[in-house]
Order: sequence, then structure tokens, then C-alpha cells
Amino acid sequence: MSVPISESCIDQVLNTLKFTPDGLIPAIAQQHNSGEILMMAWMNRDSIEETLRTGHVCYWSRSRQGLWRKGETSGQTQQLIEFRWDCDRDTLLLQVEQAGVACHTGRRNCFFYAVREDKIEKIAKVEIAPEELYN
Amino acid sequence: MSVPISESCIDQVLNTLKFTPDGLIPAIAQQHNSGEILMMAWMNRDSIEETLRTGHVCYWSRSRQGLWRKGETSGQTQQLIEFRWDCDRDTLLLQVEQAGVACHTGRRNCFFYAVREDKIEKIAKVEIAPEELYN
Repeated sequence: MSVPISESCIDQVLNTLKFTPDGLIPAIAQQHNSGEILMMAWMNRDSIEETLRTGHVCYWSRSRQGLWRKGETSGQTQQLIEFRWDCDRDTLLLQVEQAGVACHTGRRNCFFYAVREDKIEKIAKVEIAPEELYN
Repeated sequence: MSVPISESCIDQVLNTLKFTPDGLIPAIAQQHNSGEILMMAWMNRDSIEETLRTGHVCYWSRSRQGLWRKGETSGQTQQLIEFRWDCDRDTLLLQVEQAGVACHTGRRNCFFYAVREDKIEKIAKVEIAPEELYN
């Protein structure tokens, strides 16, 4: 995606999207060329603006109540390839190029719990030790 | 996925997941063999139980405040292939076999708005007219 997106286009996007009463919208991050679903997080108007200006994905951290520039601490950044949303205008799909791993546990993606053969299993291995990601 | 999942496994799943104060959890539906993200909807405990018992995806409709057996009216059902969730235990990923189209607009998936060349575009075509889906 060639950035920055113009201010007038960013305004159009922000005006068409539907936010929760808290001003948030869920965003699914997908690796653009494999289809792998990496994570789900939340964005607000500011984080969408920053993402569309810079091409680097920025979420809103509900726990820290602040902008969450993905990879700022860990180096595991997400470059925006395509910005989509759904028919109800209340969910975003970010197609991205993920550097390294998306999950804070050091796994490639966050969706590593599965029901298999009537049991709960962890189906992905840790690729980078969390101590390495956050030191 | 071979169903029904046992009651004890369903209990384990329901006990590990984190629901919103309204008793809901977001669920991403992905076509299992292509990676296409079909839609995002919400589930509650009852809809998860029904889905894991029957293998047919059932959501919770926030607008109708009732169980939403996907495809019950339109015939566009989702067969559950794998049931996953994320590191924070607050988002589900359903890998499914989608019959026909997932979106109520008659498009294959709901994420058909995109920012391209500084404009908002609809990037997917209607495959089945909505009048045909809901008559």
C-alpha cells in the first residue's frame, strides 16, 4: 500500500466506519500472502489515522489505554499491505507483512489453542522465547 | 472435526474462554482450505455448545438477541472444521467449510471494502442476489 493515504481519504474512512461506544473497532490481522490469521486487536480513530499515514500498523491498547505501535518494543512490526472492512462497517481486516512473530508468547500467530480429538491442544510451537522479545 | 465433542471437553472450553460482560466472544470465520476470511460475528456459551455438539456453526445475533444458526434462512451454512482461540482466550477462530456465500449482500465474504489508490472501493462482486438468499 502506498502511503501516506490522503487526509481526505482518511476522513472518508473514519466517517464510514462504526465504532463502539468506547470509540473502538476490532481489527483482524492476516498475513497477506499466506492467509494466516495472526491476531485480533482493537483500533481507535487515532490509531487508524497513524496506520494509514505511516503504513506501520498501530493498534489501541485497551489495557494500557494508549497507542500500541505494533513491534515498537519487540521489533515484530506489521507493514500494512491492504486495509479492508466489512459489510456492517464495524470490523477491520488488515492484510500485513508480519516481521517475525505476531504473538507475545513468541508464536507466529495468536490462535494456537484448538480442540482436537476431544482435547484442548496447543498446536503451534514457540519460535522466539518471550524473554528475547521483551528485553 | 468429528462431533459431538464430549460434554466434559465443551465444559473445559467454556471455562477457559473469557467473555465480555454481556457474555459474548468475537469469532472470526475462515474458509479452512483457502485462508479467506469470511466474516466476524459473536458467540455466547449456548451458541458455542451448539456448534461443538452439531458441527454446524451457530452464532449469537446481537440485533435479534437470539441464536443465529448460520444459513438457517439462506442455506449458506458453515460446517465446522476446526475450533481455535487465541493467547488471551478472548477471540475465537472458526475454520469452516462455507456453503455458497458468507455475506448477506451475496458476496463470498464480508470484507469487500478496501482503500486502493487513495479511494474507497468495493473489491468483490455479488455472486447471489440477496433476494434469492432471503425469499
